Amino acid sequence: MRTDRLETFTDGVLAIAATLLILNVDTQIGERAQHLANELLEIWPSYAGYAVSFLTIGIIWVQLHGLMDQIDHADRIFLFLNVFLLIFVAFIPFPTRLVAEHIRDDGATAAAVAYGVTLVGAAVMFNLVWFYASGAGGRLLRPDHDPKVVKGITRSYRPAPYIYLVMTLVAFVEPIVAVLLYGGFAIFWMIESSRFGRSRTQA
Amino acid sequence: MRTDRLETFTDGVLAIAATLLILNVDTQIGERAQHLANELLEIWPSYAGYAVSFLTIGIIWVQLHGLMDQIDHADRIFLFLNVFLLIFVAFIPFPTRLVAEHIRDDGATAAAVAYGVTLVGAAVMFNLVWFYASGAGGRLLRPDHDPKVVKGITRSYRPAPYIYLVMTLVAFVEPIVAVLLYGGFAIFWMIESSRFGRSRTQA
Amino acid sequence: MRTDRLETFTDGVLAIAATLLILNVDTQIGERAQHLANELLEIWPSYAGYAVSFLTIGIIWVQLHGLMDQIDHADRIFLFLNVFLLIFVAFIPFPTRLVAEHIRDDGATAAAVAYGVTLVGAAVMFNLVWFYASGAGGRLLRPDHDPKVVKGITRSYRPAPYIYLVMTLVAFVEPIVAVLLYGGFAIFWMIESSRFGRSRTQA
Amino acid sequence: MRTDRLETFTDGVLAIAATLLILNVDTQIGERAQHLANELLEIWPSYAGYAVSFLTIGIIWVQLHGLMDQIDHADRIFLFLNVFLLIFVAFIPFPTRLVAEHIRDDGATAAAVAYGVTLVGAAVMFNLVWFYASGAGGRLLRPDHDPKVVKGITRSYRPAPYIYLVMTLVAFVEPIVAVLLYGGFAIFWMIESSRFGRSRTQA
Repeated sequence: MRTDRLETFTDGVLAIAATLLILNVDTQIGERAQHLANELLEIWPSYAGYAVSFLTIGIIWVQLHGLMDQIDHADRIFLFLNVFLLIFVAFIPFPTRLVAEHIRDDGATAAAVAYGVTLVGAAVMFNLVWFYASGAGGRLLRPDHDPKVVKGITRSYRPAPYIYLVMTLVAFVEPIVAVLLYGGFAIFWMIESSRFGRSRTQA
Repeated sequence: MRTDRLETFTDGVLAIAATLLILNVDTQIGERAQHLANELLEIWPSYAGYAVSFLTIGIIWVQLHGLMDQIDHADRIFLFLNVFLLIFVAFIPFPTRLVAEHIRDDGATAAAVAYGVTLVGAAVMFNLVWFYASGAGGRLLRPDHDPKVVKGITRSYRPAPYIYLVMTLVAFVEPIVAVLLYGGFAIFWMIESSRFGRSRTQA
Repeated sequence: MRTDRLETFTDGVLAIAATLLILNVDTQIGERAQHLANELLEIWPSYAGYAVSFLTIGIIWVQLHGLMDQIDHADRIFLFLNVFLLIFVAFIPFPTRLVAEHIRDDGATAAAVAYGVTLVGAAVMFNLVWFYASGAGGRLLRPDHDPKVVKGITRSYRPAPYIYLVMTLVAFVEPIVAVLLYGGFAIFWMIESSRFGRSRTQA
Repeated sequence: MRTDRLETFTDGVLAIAATLLILNVDTQIGERAQHLANELLEIWPSYAGYAVSFLTIGIIWVQLHGLMDQIDHADRIFLFLNVFLLIFVAFIPFPTRLVAEHIRDDGATAAAVAYGVTLVGAAVMFNLVWFYASGAGGRLLRPDHDPKVVKGITRSYRPAPYIYLVMTLVAFVEPIVAVLLYGGFAIFWMIESSRFGRSRTQA
């Protein structure tokens, strides 16, 4: 089974999950807004949450892109592991709204933890997808895969669940710090990955 | 007429229906939530409903994938049978919300029955799609189709409408049992299908 | 410019517009529904509206499929005519909800007229898309197009705006009759088109 | 890395953002509308906003189409620049609703400014995407790209951020004029681009 249709379905879910994020911003402004300018400035956490979650989904999309390039074919276990990954990724809009709405009130801890748990789940599934494909002597890898690249991917994915787990634990104590870490990690990953991609091209 | 565009449209509808499921979870938490942590724990049926329905749509996607592999071309009757299948599949988010919201109150029976009826409809349409394509001496099948595989697919699809019908009847008496059966059947099917796919690959 | 990406975008919009229709059904049932079974039966016009509009969008998708098969390449005017067609098609979920909610109250006329006007717009745009592509000696048609097929398509599209216009006029007087006509025409078109497709295959 | 999957993801986000616009129209009509005909006429700014924003997203799609035709391959920086472009484009439905709801009340200025800022952001990102791809001696361009076409594209993109910036400044003083300019510019661009495309074809 080729990976084409898997990629279409996956890209579809990612594109929709990212685009649905705007609905979270939208619900923040009631229909009968009196002081619209003030309210638009007041809901800035919604914009930040929108941008960070959109970027996070974008990063997952770029990562999956790199992963699929190494895959030769898919079997059913691989398809279902991907479905479980998507279950977590498509969940992101919900905790994003929670964080944006509650980061300034009593619900900050619950919201930041919910966000972290979702990303831990996505990172764990991402690793399972990759370990299933690359394990057992490269079960689903392309026959001409470069073992160095495969090892590099493994090394770059493995820390993610632990990193998000630590941030989630931070969220129990300091939700605002945790939220800054979520955003910071996305930006850091994007920059690092762009550099790495560039150096690889130049090599 | 090739099946490419049919697959794009179908995958699009399935990806959107699955991703829209998160909106059902989202509406469970009002904007002015006071005890967010409690409320997030309280709505656990929404998470379960989200996961089970996402998985069910994922299974339908995997099954359609296998089905389309045997198809050579599409005619208009086949296209419209697919549209009717999608009408039922895209309906799933609605009874999913009903079950998640009402499984603990008086509406449990109605909600569980609505869920079951939707899945009976989808299973019936799935069989009609396949019987139309494979009937009359393999009307739309690839010339080089393997009769054994075709028979195997027929055998694996046929019971689904009856199984969901029985579960729907159970829902009239014991809605909670029925809901457990819906989830259990999805997980069972996923495991069985993964095993079967694997043994087929090894053969 | 090839038509591939146009078809991806178009299929995406159609798939989303069709799948969004379920949100119209969903909003009919409040979160605190008391007599869920009754309410689920009470909102049957929503199910009918969902099915008819989904089928109508499915028909537009099938028609566009047939149209694109005759097209060799796209220019910008063609792209923008398609965008205007999509503006009308993606509008369908809105009047669908209006009809489902108001067919049994004072708003029936306004709702049925709104539905009709949307379909008149879509049918007019569909004809403009086709006339632009096939006009001026087959501006964008494949060099090997069959003039008979092109004429057949022209003949089958041309009446649609007038048919929907008449139904819209009926809606001003008898909204319920108009709504039955909208549904009946979709079913009629589907059956006719399936027969025609079949006879063409057999020829 | 080929640009195929980037185009699938991008087209998905654009198609969804455009189709979600109808939800803005939908929320304007409450479930218990008393004088539906009047209310449907009353909300005409929602229809205009829907059409203008759908067309604007359509224009972005056409432009990206032309841009991608010149691209040979993508690197990670290019992918992330595209993600940031999409962050702004997928944001459009939100200020569209604001403008439609508030153009006739005190919120007109805030709404029109929000719309303008979003488009300035999208136009800036669009230029960054293109300058990154075409800069440094045509970093990501096809080896056989026509320098004249590349220069033509650069010249046609560069003014957009300034044009939208001026319109946004107008919005601070005369929001209604600014909104007319947003719509007028979309229509002007569409006509100019169709002419240009045509003359290029004839050349």
